[in-house]
Amino acid sequence: MKAPLLAALLLATAPALAQTSITTLPPPVAVDPKIAALRDAALENDQYAWDITEGLTTEVGQRLAATDAEARARDWAVRRLTAMGFANVHVEPFTMPVWTRGAESAEIVSPFPQKLAVAALGYSGSTGPAGVTGEIVYFDSVDALRLAPDSAVQGKIVFIDHRMMPAQDGSGYGQFGAPRRQGPTIASKKGALAIVIRSIGTDHHRNPHTGVQYFTDGASPIPAGALSIPDSEQLIRILKRGQPVVMHLTLVSQRSEGAQSGNVIAEVPGRDPKAPILLVGGHLDSWDLATGAIDDASGVAIMAAAAKRIMDAGRPLRTIRVVWFGAEEPGGLGGKAYAAAHGKESYAIAGESDFGADRVWRFSSQLSKSDPATFAALVAALAPLGITKNDKGDADGTDIDPTVELGAPWISLNQDGTRYFDWHHSPDDTLDKIDPAQLRQNVAAWTTVLAILSGGIEPGPKQQKRR
Amino acid sequence: MKAPLLAALLLATAPALAQTSITTLPPPVAVDPKIAALRDAALENDQYAWDITEGLTTEVGQRLAATDAEARARDWAVRRLTAMGFANVHVEPFTMPVWTRGAESAEIVSPFPQKLAVAALGYSGSTGPAGVTGEIVYFDSVDALRLAPDSAVQGKIVFIDHRMMPAQDGSGYGQFGAPRRQGPTIASKKGALAIVIRSIGTDHHRNPHTGVQYFTDGASPIPAGALSIPDSEQLIRILKRGQPVVMHLTLVSQRSEGAQSGNVIAEVPGRDPKAPILLVGGHLDSWDLATGAIDDASGVAIMAAAAKRIMDAGRPLRTIRVVWFGAEEPGGLGGKAYAAAHGKESYAIAGESDFGADRVWRFSSQLSKSDPATFAALVAALAPLGITKNDKGDADGTDIDPTVELGAPWISLNQDGTRYFDWHHSPDDTLDKIDPAQLRQNVAAWTTVLAILSGGIEPGPKQQKRR
Repeated sequence: MKAPLLAALLLATAPALAQTSITTLPPPVAVDPKIAALRDAALENDQYAWDITEGLTTEVGQRLAATDAEARARDWAVRRLTAMGFANVHVEPFTMPVWTRGAESAEIVSPFPQKLAVAALGYSGSTGPAGVTGEIVYFDSVDALRLAPDSAVQGKIVFIDHRMMPAQDGSGYGQFGAPRRQGPTIASKKGALAIVIRSIGTDHHRNPHTGVQYFTDGASPIPAGALSIPDSEQLIRILKRGQPVVMHLTLVSQRSEGAQSGNVIAEVPGRDPKAPILLVGGHLDSWDLATGAIDDASGVAIMAAAAKRIMDAGRPLRTIRVVWFGAEEPGGLGGKAYAAAHGKESYAIAGESDFGADRVWRFSSQLSKSDPATFAALVAALAPLGITKNDKGDADGTDIDPTVELGAPWISLNQDGTRYFDWHHSPDDTLDKIDPAQLRQNVAAWTTVLAILSGGIEPGPKQQKRR
Repeated sequence: MKAPLLAALLLATAPALAQTSITTLPPPVAVDPKIAALRDAALENDQYAWDITEGLTTEVGQRLAATDAEARARDWAVRRLTAMGFANVHVEPFTMPVWTRGAESAEIVSPFPQKLAVAALGYSGSTGPAGVTGEIVYFDSVDALRLAPDSAVQGKIVFIDHRMMPAQDGSGYGQFGAPRRQGPTIASKKGALAIVIRSIGTDHHRNPHTGVQYFTDGASPIPAGALSIPDSEQLIRILKRGQPVVMHLTLVSQRSEGAQSGNVIAEVPGRDPKAPILLVGGHLDSWDLATGAIDDASGVAIMAAAAKRIMDAGRPLRTIRVVWFGAEEPGGLGGKAYAAAHGKESYAIAGESDFGADRVWRFSSQLSKSDPATFAALVAALAPLGITKNDKGDADGTDIDPTVELGAPWISLNQDGTRYFDWHHSPDDTLDKIDPAQLRQNVAAWTTVLAILSGGIEPGPKQQKRR
C-alpha cells in the first residue's frame, strides 16, 4: 500500500486520533516524586500482601460466613493486623443465619448411568440424605424457564444452561449469573422438585461453582445445585440423545438462625482526627469449597498492605480505615452492618478490592466529576502501572455499596477478570492462582491512591528516628 | 554481520549441517499417491474417531475395570464395531479381582483444621467408614522414605512429595510416578498407618490423580491416596509452620475376586488369511473418576477409525485386527490375556494408542532395522503430518507389550504429552480435553501406517460397485 493512500485511510477510519493536536491536550500533570517512589517500591518489593494471602489461606483455609472457621479467621485477622502496627484493631460482630453443606452427589440413573460433579448453592434446600429422583427438564436460559408452563416443570429437576465467556471486565457475570440468582426461585414457584444449573464459570474442570441465591417472592426452598461445566456439557450431550434423563440428586444442607459473623476493623490514625477518612477493604469470609485466595484473601491483603505502606512512610493527614468485612458471600451482610454503624461518618473516599489479584487495568471514581484536579493526579500517577481511566465506571463492591449509598465518594480499581471466573466460588480458588507480580501491582496501585488522597504524609516518630 | 563471517560461524558451530551434501543423502523416497490421499482425507474429514470418543464417554461414561460399567462398555463396543462393518466382532472374557472406591475425605485436624481433596489409589486398603487419624510425616521422594528408619514412620501417615513437570515425551511419569507405584508398599513395610502422595500430575486443580499400585514383597495393604496438587502444596505450607500436623483420613474401598473383564476384538479381513496380521488397539476401561476421554476412549477411537478408513478404501492383503483391551488400568490384564490366547500368532506389526489425542510428533519402529525400505516409506509418508522418526524409540504400550515380548514387531507413534498429565487419571479426563483437529491427525497417521503395512489395498465389492 502506498503511503498517501494509507494516510487517507487513517484519516477516514480514525478521525479522533488524526485530529488530536498538542494544542488541544489538557495541561500536563506532574507526579509527586515521593508518591512515585512509594508506588514503585510497592511494585518492586511488597511482601505484606503475599504474606497475608498466604497466611490466611494456609492457617485458616476456607472461612464460610458465620461458621467457626470464619471466627478463626477473625482471630487470625486481629492478631495479624495488630502485629503489623495498625491502631484500633477490633471486631464488630453481627448475627445472621448460617448455612452449611453436607453430603452431595448427582447421578444419572437412566439412560446412561454415571456420576456428575455437583455442589449446592448457598441457602439451597436439602434433599435429605436419601436424595430425590426426577426427570431432567432442560432450559437454555432463565427466560426460557420463565416462559415455560408450570406443567413442563412440575415434579421435575430443572436444568438451566447458559453461555458465559471470559471477559476482562467480568461483565458476563451479571447476565449469565441469572440462572443461579433467579433460577431456584422461579423453578420452585413452578413446582420443580429441584434445580441444577451449569456452573457460572468459564473453565473446563470438574469443579462446580457455588454462590448465593435466595428464595424470594414466597418461594419455598428446593434443592438447588451447580454442576461443573464439563458435567453440564455431558448432561446436554445425554439429553440430545432424546431419551428421558432421570437424575438422582443428593444435596444435604442445614440452616440455622442466630449465628455470629463480624467485621474486622483496623486503622492508620491520621494527624487530623476530624478529616474525612479513607475507607478501604475487602471481605474476610469465603465460600467453603476452597481457601478463597482470589475471593477474597488477596483483596483484604492488598488493602492492608497499601495502608501499611503508608504507615511505614509516615503519618497521613487523614485516617485510613481498613475493613475486612464478614459475610460478604451470603449477601453482603458485613457491608450492611458496617454502613448501619458507620455509614454516616465523613469519608474522603471508599474503595474495595474483591475481584482477584490479577493486574488493575483501569479505574474510575466519582472524583472525576467532584474533584477533577485530584482525579488528574490519580490518572498521571497510575499510568506507569498500565492503568487507564474509565469515564463510565460505577462504584463497585458489595461491601462498600451501602456506605456509598449513604454518600461516601467512591473509587473503583478494576482488576483484569479474564481468568477470574475460571476459579470463582469453586474448589479451585487456591493460593497457586495468585501471581505475586500482579498482586504487587495491585498494592502499588492502592498505595498510590491512598498516598494521593491522604492529605499529605509527614514523618512520624519512626521516620524521624531514622534520619 | 557480514556474510563471510556468518558463513565461517555456521561452519564452526554446526559442522554436521555444514558438511551435509546432497550427494551423501539417502535415496529419495516417493510417497504412493493413493496412500497420501488416504492420509489427507483422514486429516481433513475423519468423523469416526470423534464419534466413538464422544459416544463412549457420553453413553457409557466411566468404565472401571471388571465393573458393570466396563461390561456396558463392552456391549457398546460390540454394537458400535458391528455397525461400522467390522468382521468377527466378539468379546474374549477373563476373570480378575475388582476394586471399587467408596466415601473418601482428608481433613487436617490440627494445627489448622481444613479439608483437602483426596482420592484412593487403585487397590488401596480401606480405612473403613470411621477413617484413621495420624500425624503426617513428610518425604520429598520415595528414596527419602526408603532411607528413613522405621521408627520415623510407624503409626504415622506418610506423605510423599515430588516435582513432576510437563514433558512432551511424558518421560517424567517413570521417575516421578514412583511415589504412587512403590510408596505404599514401602510405607506399609515400615509400619505406616496410611500414605498420601502428591498426585502424579502437572496441573493446579483440586482434582486428585488416581492410578494403580500393588502391595508387593509381602506388604499388607494400607490406605493409600493421592492429594490434589494444590492440596499437596497446601499441606507442605502447613508442615513448614513446624507444628505437628494431624490428618483424619477416610478412604473406603472394597476388593473382591472373580469378577469379569474382557477384550473386544474386531477385524478387517485380509485377502490373504495366512499373511501376518496388523494388530492395533487401545484400552476400553478407564479409571472411575472421569469418563476417560484421553485415557483411553480416544485411543480405541483412533485405531478403529484408521482401520475403518482402510475398510472403506478396499480390501487389504493382511488382516487388520483391532483390539479394545479390557482392564489396562489395574495392570494390563487385558494385554496379558490377549497374549496368552493370541501371542503366538503371526504379526506384521503391533501398535497401540494410549497417550491421549494430542498430535503425533514422532514415531519409532523395529522396522527401522528389520525392514529399512518400509521404514523409509513410513518416514516419507508421515512427514507431511509433522511427524519425525526417532531412532532410539522402544515398543510402547501396556496392552501390546506381552505380545511384543512374544515376538511381534512393534511400531510406536508418540503423541505430544505436554498436557497429558494435567488430566491423566483425574476427574478432569473428559471430552472437552479432546481437540478434534489433533484427533484427526492421529487418525491420519495410523491410517497411513496401516495403508503402508497392509500389503496393498485392492477394491472390494463396495469399491467395485462404486465405479
